[in-house]
Amino acid sequence: MSANEAEVRRERFEHGMEVLERIDGEAGRRVVESLGDVSPELGHQIVAWGFGEVYSRPGLAPRERQLVTLGMLTALGGCEPQLEVHVNAALNVGLTPQEIVEALLHSAAYCGFPKALNATFVAKKVFGERGLLPVTAEQ
Amino acid sequence: MSANEAEVRRERFEHGMEVLERIDGEAGRRVVESLGDVSPELGHQIVAWGFGEVYSRPGLAPRERQLVTLGMLTALGGCEPQLEVHVNAALNVGLTPQEIVEALLHSAAYCGFPKALNATFVAKKVFGERGLLPVTAEQ
Amino acid sequence: MSANEAEVRRERFEHGMEVLERIDGEAGRRVVESLGDVSPELGHQIVAWGFGEVYSRPGLAPRERQLVTLGMLTALGGCEPQLEVHVNAALNVGLTPQEIVEALLHSAAYCGFPKALNATFVAKKVFGERGLLPVTAEQ
Amino acid sequence: MSANEAEVRRERFEHGMEVLERIDGEAGRRVVESLGDVSPELGHQIVAWGFGEVYSRPGLAPRERQLVTLGMLTALGGCEPQLEVHVNAALNVGLTPQEIVEALLHSAAYCGFPKALNATFVAKKVFGERGLLPVTAEQ
Amino acid sequence: MSANEAEVRRERFEHGMEVLERIDGEAGRRVVESLGDVSPELGHQIVAWGFGEVYSRPGLAPRERQLVTLGMLTALGGCEPQLEVHVNAALNVGLTPQEIVEALLHSAAYCGFPKALNATFVAKKVFGERGLLPVTAEQ
Amino acid sequence: MSANEAEVRRERFEHGMEVLERIDGEAGRRVVESLGDVSPELGHQIVAWGFGEVYSRPGLAPRERQLVTLGMLTALGGCEPQLEVHVNAALNVGLTPQEIVEALLHSAAYCGFPKALNATFVAKKVFGERGLLPVTAEQ
Repeated sequence: MSANEAEVRRERFEHGMEVLERIDGEAGRRVVESLGDVSPELGHQIVAWGFGEVYSRPGLAPRERQLVTLGMLTALGGCEPQLEVHVNAALNVGLTPQEIVEALLHSAAYCGFPKALNATFVAKKVFGERGLLPVTAEQ
Repeated sequence: MSANEAEVRRERFEHGMEVLERIDGEAGRRVVESLGDVSPELGHQIVAWGFGEVYSRPGLAPRERQLVTLGMLTALGGCEPQLEVHVNAALNVGLTPQEIVEALLHSAAYCGFPKALNATFVAKKVFGERGLLPVTAEQ
Repeated sequence: MSANEAEVRRERFEHGMEVLERIDGEAGRRVVESLGDVSPELGHQIVAWGFGEVYSRPGLAPRERQLVTLGMLTALGGCEPQLEVHVNAALNVGLTPQEIVEALLHSAAYCGFPKALNATFVAKKVFGERGLLPVTAEQ
Repeated sequence: MSANEAEVRRERFEHGMEVLERIDGEAGRRVVESLGDVSPELGHQIVAWGFGEVYSRPGLAPRERQLVTLGMLTALGGCEPQLEVHVNAALNVGLTPQEIVEALLHSAAYCGFPKALNATFVAKKVFGERGLLPVTAEQ
Repeated sequence: MSANEAEVRRERFEHGMEVLERIDGEAGRRVVESLGDVSPELGHQIVAWGFGEVYSRPGLAPRERQLVTLGMLTALGGCEPQLEVHVNAALNVGLTPQEIVEALLHSAAYCGFPKALNATFVAKKVFGERGLLPVTAEQ
Repeated sequence: MSANEAEVRRERFEHGMEVLERIDGEAGRRVVESLGDVSPELGHQIVAWGFGEVYSRPGLAPRERQLVTLGMLTALGGCEPQLEVHVNAALNVGLTPQEIVEALLHSAAYCGFPKALNATFVAKKVFGERGLLPVTAEQ
C-alpha cells in the first residue's frame, strides 16, 4: 500500500467513525472494538464503507434510514444483536419509542408475528435500559 | 373510536383469548402479557386477529394447524422462542412427541440439517420440562 | 355468522379497501381481485386487517411505512411481486425515485448486494412504466 | 463400489422412486429426470434418501407430511417450483383445495402476507391446471 | 467533492472494474451497465467496494471465494440472477462443472433439497449456454 | 427391517461416524449424542447420510467443503450453534483463522454486515477457545 493509499484509507475510516458515533453511539463503537482481535478489516469496512460511504449519503434523513434498517433487521431474522444497536440508533436520531413500536407492529403484516415479536422484545430491552418503559400510546 | 367500535374490539380480543388459551395455554398468555408495557397493540392483534380470526377458522384441525406451524417456524429460522410456544401447543392439541420429532426430521430434507437441529433441540427442551423424555420409537 | 357480525365484517373490509386504494392504487386492487377464485378470505384479511387495521394506524406517516416496507421486502427476498406493488405505493405516497433508490442502496449494507440488486431492478421496472427513468442524482 | 454396494444403492433408489411416484406423481419424476445431465447424484439422493428414507417413514400420515411441507416451502420463500410440485402432491394424497388454501391463509400470521400470497398464487396455478377453480368455501 | 476525492473515487472504480472483468466477465459488466439509469451509485459501489476492496483481497484464492459465494447464494434463496453470474464466474476462475455441481449437492445437507435444486438448475442453464452438458462424473 | 437391512444401516452409520469424527471431531459427536433421547433417527441420518453419503464424496477437498459450508451457514442466519461446529471443523481440515475470517469478510458483500458480524463473533469464540487469538494479518 502506498503512502497515499494508506492516507486515503485512514481518512475514510475517520470519516466513517464520525458518522458511526453520531448515529450508533457507544454501542456501535463497541462492536468495532470487539472485532479488533479477530477481524479488524471487517471493523474497518463497516466503518469506512458502511457508515462513511453509505450511511453518510444525503438522500435520506437519518430517521428514515433507521426505519429502513429496522424493517430489514426484523425481516432478516436472527439479527437481534444488530437490532439492539439500531433500536438505540433509532432513538439517537430522533425516532420515538412509539414510532419504533409502530414500525415493528407494521412488520407483522409483512414478516409475520414471530419476527415482529423477536424485534419488539429487543426494543423492550433497549427501552428498559434507557428508562423509556412503559411505552404509552401517543395522544 | 365509537362506543360500538370499542365494544367490537373488546369482543374480538376476548374471543381470540379463548382460542389462545385453549391452544397455547400459559405460554401464549405470558407472551401477550410481556408485550403490555412495550406494544400492547401487537399483543392485541396477535390475540384478536392471529387467534381470533385465523387460528379459530374451521378449515383445518388444530393438530394440522400445528404441523403447518412447526414447519414454518423451523424453516424461518431464528424463531426458537415461538417454536417453544408451539411445541407446547402441539402437545396441547394432541400431537405426540413422536409425531413432533417426525415432523422435524421431515424438515431436514426441505430446510437442511442446521434448522432441523435447532428445532429439535427446542422440542427436547419442552419435552424435558414436561417429563416426556426420552422419546421412544412408536411400536 | 350473525347479521351484526356480517355487518362488522363488511364495514372492516370497506374501510380497508379505502386505505388500500389510497396507497397501493390499481395494483393492490388487482392482487385482491386475483385471489377471488382461490382464496377470497386471504384477500379479505389483507384488506380488512393489513390495510384496515395496521396500515391505517396514525403512528407513522405513509411515506415512513413504505420505507419500512421496502426494507422488509428487500430483506425477505423472493418477494419481487410485492416489491413491485410497494414501489408503486411508495411513489403514490410521495417518495421520490431518488429516495427509493437511496433506500435500496442503503439495504446493500444490511442485506448484501444480491438482494439490493433484485429490489433495484424491480424499482427500475416500475420507474420505466411510469416514465421516471433515468433517475438522476438530486442536486 | 463393490457389487453389493451397487446393489444396495439401486434398491434404495427403486424403493424411493416408488414413494416419489405415489406422492409427487409425474411432476416429481420430471424433476429427477431433468437432473440427469447436470447432477444425477442430486436426483439419486432426492429419491433414495428424501423419499426412500425420510418420506416413507410411518410416523406421520402423507397428508400430514404435506402440511408440514407446505408450511416450510411457504416460509423459505423463493421455492415456487417446489411448491408447485407439493401442491400437486398435497392433492394427490387427499388434501382438498380448501384445506391447502386454509394452510396458506394460516401461514400469513407466521410468515406475513407476501409469502402467503406467493404460495397462494402457486396453488391457484395448480388448481387451474387440474380444473379445481374456483375454490369454494366448504359448507 | 474535491478534485482529489473525485480522483480517488474514479481510481477505486477502475481498480474494481478490472477485478470484476477478470472474475465475472461480460455478465458482471452487464449488471453494472443496467444499473446506469436507475442507481449508478449502486453499480459504483458493487464495483469499487465489492470487487475493488473485498474480492481483490489476497487472503483466499478466487476459486475459494467462488465456493463461499455459491454456498451463500444457494442458502439465501431467490438470488437466481446472481447465481447465474457466479456460476459463470466460478467457471471463469477454474472450477469445473463437476466441482460446482458437487458444491450444490453438498448444499442439500445444509439448506435442504429445494434450494439445492434451484441452484442446480441455474448451473444447468449456464453449463448449457457454454456447451458443458452433460456433466459427467469425474474418473 | 430384515437382518440384511439392519446390517446395511449399521454399516452406513459407522462409515459416516468415521467421516464425522475426522472432520467435526468432538463437537460433532456431542451433537449426535445429545439427540439420543429426543430424535436418534435425526442423529442417525446426519451421520449416515450427511457425513457418510454427502461429505465423504471425493469431488471437493475437505477445506473446500468447509468454505461452502461457512458461506451457507452465514447466509442462512440463526445457525450459530452449527457455525461453531463448522468453524472448528474448518480449522480441523486445515483452514487457517485468517482464511476463515477472510471468508466471513467476503460474506459481508453478499449477506450484509449483520450476518457477517454474527458469524465472525462465532469464529472469535472458537478461536479464543483454541488459543488462536489475536488473528493477525498474514505476511
